[in-house]
Parts: sequence; C-alpha cells; structure tokens
Amino acid sequence: MTAPYLTFLDAEGLAREGIPDGWSFGMADRVRFAELDALNHVNNAAYLSWFEALRVHYVSAYGLSDYRPEDPELVLRDVACRYHAPMFLNERYIVTARTARYRRTSFTMEYAVFAETLRATGSAVIVCLARDGSGRAPLADAVVGAFRARDGAVPET
Amino acid sequence: MTAPYLTFLDAEGLAREGIPDGWSFGMADRVRFAELDALNHVNNAAYLSWFEALRVHYVSAYGLSDYRPEDPELVLRDVACRYHAPMFLNERYIVTARTARYRRTSFTMEYAVFAETLRATGSAVIVCLARDGSGRAPLADAVVGAFRARDGAVPET
Amino acid sequence: MTAPYLTFLDAEGLAREGIPDGWSFGMADRVRFAELDALNHVNNAAYLSWFEALRVHYVSAYGLSDYRPEDPELVLRDVACRYHAPMFLNERYIVTARTARYRRTSFTMEYAVFAETLRATGSAVIVCLARDGSGRAPLADAVVGAFRARDGAVPET
Amino acid sequence: MTAPYLTFLDAEGLAREGIPDGWSFGMADRVRFAELDALNHVNNAAYLSWFEALRVHYVSAYGLSDYRPEDPELVLRDVACRYHAPMFLNERYIVTARTARYRRTSFTMEYAVFAETLRATGSAVIVCLARDGSGRAPLADAVVGAFRARDGAVPET
Repeated sequence: MTAPYLTFLDAEGLAREGIPDGWSFGMADRVRFAELDALNHVNNAAYLSWFEALRVHYVSAYGLSDYRPEDPELVLRDVACRYHAPMFLNERYIVTARTARYRRTSFTMEYAVFAETLRATGSAVIVCLARDGSGRAPLADAVVGAFRARDGAVPET
Repeated sequence: MTAPYLTFLDAEGLAREGIPDGWSFGMADRVRFAELDALNHVNNAAYLSWFEALRVHYVSAYGLSDYRPEDPELVLRDVACRYHAPMFLNERYIVTARTARYRRTSFTMEYAVFAETLRATGSAVIVCLARDGSGRAPLADAVVGAFRARDGAVPET
Repeated sequence: MTAPYLTFLDAEGLAREGIPDGWSFGMADRVRFAELDALNHVNNAAYLSWFEALRVHYVSAYGLSDYRPEDPELVLRDVACRYHAPMFLNERYIVTARTARYRRTSFTMEYAVFAETLRATGSAVIVCLARDGSGRAPLADAVVGAFRARDGAVPET
Repeated sequence: MTAPYLTFLDAEGLAREGIPDGWSFGMADRVRFAELDALNHVNNAAYLSWFEALRVHYVSAYGLSDYRPEDPELVLRDVACRYHAPMFLNERYIVTARTARYRRTSFTMEYAVFAETLRATGSAVIVCLARDGSGRAPLADAVVGAFRARDGAVPET
C-alpha cells in the first residue's frame, strides 16, 4: 500500500510544520471520536495514550527496544501532563517526544502536543530492567549517544 | 500545517490501494499500542471504535449530519463485527464504510478492515430521530441519493 | 480486604435482583465516566468491554479456560450488540451471560444489560483452538455439561 | 436493586480495609480485562481513569459540582502518576482521593491505589471557572470547609 498512514516527522519535518526548535521526533495525527469524553473534548487520559503511542516508536528509533526478548525491559515509573488548552473532534495535531535527561539506568522524556497552539506538555521517567530479573540495566552507549545527539539530552546529576 | 495526517480515500483512492470493488469511502490508519489487549492483538472493541471514527466522517461527507442542533439525531441501534484474522501493533490498515440498505428513517451500513488481507467486517443499523423529540425523522432525498449513487445502496423491503 | 468489590451473581442472586428467568451468571456494576462518549451516554464499544469482562470470568467459572498455557485458546469470531435504550453516568446495572448453543469446537454466547429496564442485548461466537497450532479443539465434556446444566444450552445443528 | 455495586468507603470504612491514615474518600474496585495492555498489566492511562471516576464522585460528595449548569466548571490543569508496582487482571484494589492544598480558585488533589501494597500515587490540579465565561470562580466556603474538615487540606501559599 502506498497511501500515507500515520506520519512520523524528524527535526526537519517538524520545523516545516512550524513546531518550535528543540524537538526532533514527532507524529502527526487527528483527534478521534473515541478520544472525546462527556465534556466533548479530548479526555485527559487520551493524551497519555498519545505519548505512549509515540514512545513505542521512539524507543525503537533510538535503538533502545523493539520489545524483543533480548531488549531491556522498560518500566514506566512516572508520568505527568499539563493541559494548556482543550482539544476537539477532528483537530489535527502533532505530538512530539524527546529525552531531556538521563542517568545510568533511567531517563526522563518530555512530550508536547501542538495544534497551531500548544495544547499539552508532559513527561515520563522510564527505568531499564535486565530481562534476567537481576535488577536495573544500564543504558547502552549508543542509546545515550542518540539521546545526546538527536535530542540534546544531558546527564542528570 | 501541511503534513499528511489521517488520510481519507474515495473509490479511486481505495482502488489504487488494492481494496476490492464496492467501497467508495475509507480511511488509512495504523494500529496503536492502546488498541492492543493482553493477548497482544487488537482488542475486539477497538474495531467498533474504528467503524465509529469513520462513520462520523461518513455522515458528514454524505450530507446526513455534522452533529449540529439542526441535524437529525442519529441513534445506533445494532452493531456487529466478524473477526477474520488478528491484527498487531503498527500494522497499517484501511477501514471502509458504505450504506448497503436504507428504509424511510433508518439505514444499514457495512464496514471492512483490510491490511493486505481482509481482517474484519462489520455492520451497523442507524436510526434517524427528529430533534424535537417527535419521533423518527425521514432521510433527506439528497442523502438517499448519495447512498445510492456513491455506495449502490438499495431500499430495504 | 473484606469490602464488597465487583459482585458476581448466580441464578438465585439474579432472580433476587429482578432479572428475568434464563440467566444464571451475572455481574453488578456501575457506569464510569470514562465509558461515556461525547453524546454523554455510554459509548457503543463500552458494552462490548462489559461483555468481555464478564466472559473472562464466565470461561473460568464454567471450566473452559483460566488463560493458562494448557487451556484451549479461545478466539472471538463474531460479536453483535443491540442497543435498546441509552445508559448514563453512575447508573447501576447488571450484565448477564449464558451459552445458548454449542457445536463441537465452538459456542454461541448471549449477553444482556439490565438497569431496571433492558438496555442492551448481545451475542458472541467463540472458537476453541488447540495450543499446539494443530487446529480447532473440541469442547471438553464437562464444559458442555456446564453449558447445558447451568445455561440450558442446546447443540447447534 | 439491592446487590452491592461499586462500594464507596469513608474514613472508617477505609481504616477497616487497612488503608493508612490520612484518606477519607475511596472506592473499592477490581481490575478489568479492558484495562490491561499488551504487557499484560494495567495500562498507565487506566490509572488516570480510575482517579477521574473517583473524582466525579468526590466533587459531588464535597459539594463542589454535580455537573449541573449552575455549578462551576472544573478544569483539569495538571495530572501526575507514579507507578509503584504493576497490577494484574482481577486484582481487587481501593483507590483513594483527597484534597491536599487549595487556593482561592483552584485545588490540588492526591490519589493512591492500594491492593494489599501501595501500587500507585497521583495528583491533579483543578481550576474552577465561572459558567458565564468571566474567568476563574472562587471555591465556595462550604467546599473549602469540607476540604479542611474531611481531608485536612491546607491553604497553598
């Protein structure tokens, strides 16, 4: 099939869409009916699912995990979301993700949702565990390198 | 913004994507993480939300309702779905909709989900009510005309 | 913990709640905010999730599957739902399930939702597969016996 | 109907269930199949829906809003959730809510999920708006009184 489906955007593509500097991984999408709640706008939990949907692609694109048995187990430790303005049916939006800070075995991601204006921002702390149950697993150097080079991530002290 | 978001497809676009004849309204999309269940495939209820998302666009495109106060109230009376084959994370698919049969105040839609192969088919019966609470509202002639011309719908006897 | 959580009901318990004869497995619950859609009533797909939640308990209670590796794989082939009347926030309801008909390797369940009045009815066809991938698995005699004794199920011809 | 449905718990009821001091509003529930994700545990966004379901009852019980036209509009400004331990199908849990801090036109709620052990904690900032669009609405004295008396809330400076 050749029709465009969900569209992933890199730094250049995001810039072309008018997204502010500082983001290099995003996805263009559209509000669906099932994401609205009884107040007729996008439900607060739906934003977390948008972050999650993008995160699944992000951890693959940055070499962290394809959810194969040999990949580290990624555990969501914390999430947060700030709602700047409501969103409505059929609105087209771009959701962005980046890693802002990293430690030896965990990292902090940031998210934003843009639809002309900024609608929501969020964050998540993700911990890497070894598959053998032996505890936390260190981030691979290549992954840290991607966090730094592509997202400008800095070590957390 | 200029990036492609969700992509709607007409009869020609669907044909180009290899969808069988007989469909003239569709949408290209991709399976999201939140649509999977504990069995690791798309949950049965998610397909109904796909049909619903497309139906919202369909009733607008066919002149039936934009969910304004002056539009007839559309009430879902029946739904059904047959699962032909499971669907997995990130699969790209096309969901299609058409009206197969109509009566004076109701109509029967059909749906299908294609991802190379046929994955699911469905149907829905929708009843039109007058906004003043006076009971059922007849389908406008222009709507019936669109059902017939675009979808090949036939009167139900 | 001792507080009542979700309440499961047998034939006697259902009769005491005023549910019509013919049902012997049910669950009492309450409409949650997240189950409403933008039309301010329970979304059509939420009913399928209610049926599913009850089905998971049903197949365990009737000895069919606890989703262990040695249990047959249960595949949902068809679902249908008829919406009799809308449901609203906080409404208390009872959802019921039974097996109406069975074949050698599949069975047809029926569902209903009661909140004083009948709100929805549904059905599902479930197919049993062998875990070794060798194809369909026959229903165990004890399971068929439970379908017949508890639900009055009949063989489908 | 007389069967127990969802069970709401006050300070005394929560204490009886072994919930730590400091909570006086809770709800007993059970993990449903639809709340699991492909990783076979409760999805991160489902916890937000649990907080929301309880919040709807809380704002009514504390005299803040029954979502009637004359009630202030409550806008969710921020949410956060920390995941302490995963949750699985059918686990029975108690979710609790309280107001920790309040300002003139907003307040900060806290949430927790207990299932023998602590599984998640969360927070939300809620802003009150006047229905006439004139801007923020002050919390009624009776509401602040309930926050203080029932939850031990303190003014935020």
